[in-house]
Amino acid sequence: MVIIGERINGMFKLVGQAIQDRDKAFIQDLALKQLAEGADMLDINVGTASADPVDAMAWLVQSVREVTQAPLSIDNPNLATMKAGLEACTGAKMINSTTGQDEQLDIFLGLAKEHNAYVVALCIDEKGVPVDVDGRCEIAMRVLAKAMEFDVPIENLYIDPIVLPVKADQTGPGKVLESIKQFTVLSDPAPHIVVGLSNLSQGAVDRKLINRAFLAMAIGVGLDAAILDPLDTELMDTLIAGEMLMNRTIYSDSFLKAYRQK
Amino acid sequence: MVIIGERINGMFKLVGQAIQDRDKAFIQDLALKQLAEGADMLDINVGTASADPVDAMAWLVQSVREVTQAPLSIDNPNLATMKAGLEACTGAKMINSTTGQDEQLDIFLGLAKEHNAYVVALCIDEKGVPVDVDGRCEIAMRVLAKAMEFDVPIENLYIDPIVLPVKADQTGPGKVLESIKQFTVLSDPAPHIVVGLSNLSQGAVDRKLINRAFLAMAIGVGLDAAILDPLDTELMDTLIAGEMLMNRTIYSDSFLKAYRQK
Repeated sequence: MVIIGERINGMFKLVGQAIQDRDKAFIQDLALKQLAEGADMLDINVGTASADPVDAMAWLVQSVREVTQAPLSIDNPNLATMKAGLEACTGAKMINSTTGQDEQLDIFLGLAKEHNAYVVALCIDEKGVPVDVDGRCEIAMRVLAKAMEFDVPIENLYIDPIVLPVKADQTGPGKVLESIKQFTVLSDPAPHIVVGLSNLSQGAVDRKLINRAFLAMAIGVGLDAAILDPLDTELMDTLIAGEMLMNRTIYSDSFLKAYRQK
Repeated sequence: MVIIGERINGMFKLVGQAIQDRDKAFIQDLALKQLAEGADMLDINVGTASADPVDAMAWLVQSVREVTQAPLSIDNPNLATMKAGLEACTGAKMINSTTGQDEQLDIFLGLAKEHNAYVVALCIDEKGVPVDVDGRCEIAMRVLAKAMEFDVPIENLYIDPIVLPVKADQTGPGKVLESIKQFTVLSDPAPHIVVGLSNLSQGAVDRKLINRAFLAMAIGVGLDAAILDPLDTELMDTLIAGEMLMNRTIYSDSFLKAYRQK
């Protein structure tokens, strides 16, 4: 399971403030805490409040890179900000994200190739998020074909079926689970499959419960990556138990601790 | 989801003692507590310590029936004890369980027809628990055919793919998940699919975590019944969240409470 820590995101009030104040210690601490709890990669999102997102992204990436060589997921829809993040990021990096629209794929897969970066492709196109599973699979197939065209290796590709708030549409989670199942057999080897978990429980009560129940369900059908909060201990425990139950890690009486120390 | 409360089981020390002492109040309290937490049905298992299991089963069933009309799952491998339980049980009841061996199916499906009882059929036969998913599906198909022969309606049939301790075999949970997926398309309508959840974590640490992570995974692939501990609040919360995420119950901000009051 590739765990992408979601906490360095300017949409969170304290992080937004730290970005504004260029409070490097706060950001670095948040990076190290997430890694200590089992994150493999760190999402870097400047949020929407920065007056100069390009500069903020470069600063964030450099600040985090000073304390870890973990891959950084440059999370921004704007091309200039994305490029600033990629250029500032020495070592392993992820483009988060491209949509499944042709022009977007051309741009971001080109960048992925240029930077030897992982890339998240969202199952959304000019018509929006498909209402059904087939529509998501069609976009995923298009992404796979385009990745081949751009010579981006499949192991660098993360397909995101798009998790929407369950409160807004209760048929969504079932469709995402079915999409994940289908994605696992789209190609051999399959692409990685990733979700942005927290979106599921937007506006709901019992958010953490909803997130961790769905995470277990998704792991059970083949999810192998997630953007989530590694500081949510119960969520991480569920993830680690799920991995063990899927026989991806070895059971020992200290399996929880062993996973975090991996 | 059909929730079968597992707590009235003579293998638990206090329950075993209560059976020996014919402590009706203790048993009735345990029945009512499980129902209050959302159990739809109560498993009734005399355990192995009783000198006279036939008499113990009849007493247990009668004691519980005095306080609830909920269906009771008569849980015993011995035919005489099973019959005593079924006869003592007025109203709705379940035979828990038959194996998939022909002679066993003849006996227990005959009893199911006679008593208009639900029946749990385990995916095990004279060769033991199949090592693979196909073997489990073969047994399930045999059970379905036999049930038709005995005129036991499919909605009364609960197929159990058999959950073994993950500590003993880590490939087991994945096989059970795959079996559940296959069982959902064995027939139309599909039979109910049930697991005895607690067996999964026998001998393991973090038993409750393992149980609830797997329960969510199993709900995500189509499980619709489970024998479990309804007094485990976190387990029940996970179950209720899973049901909501599968769109089987309606989201509201009080969805946890609403489910328990169903």
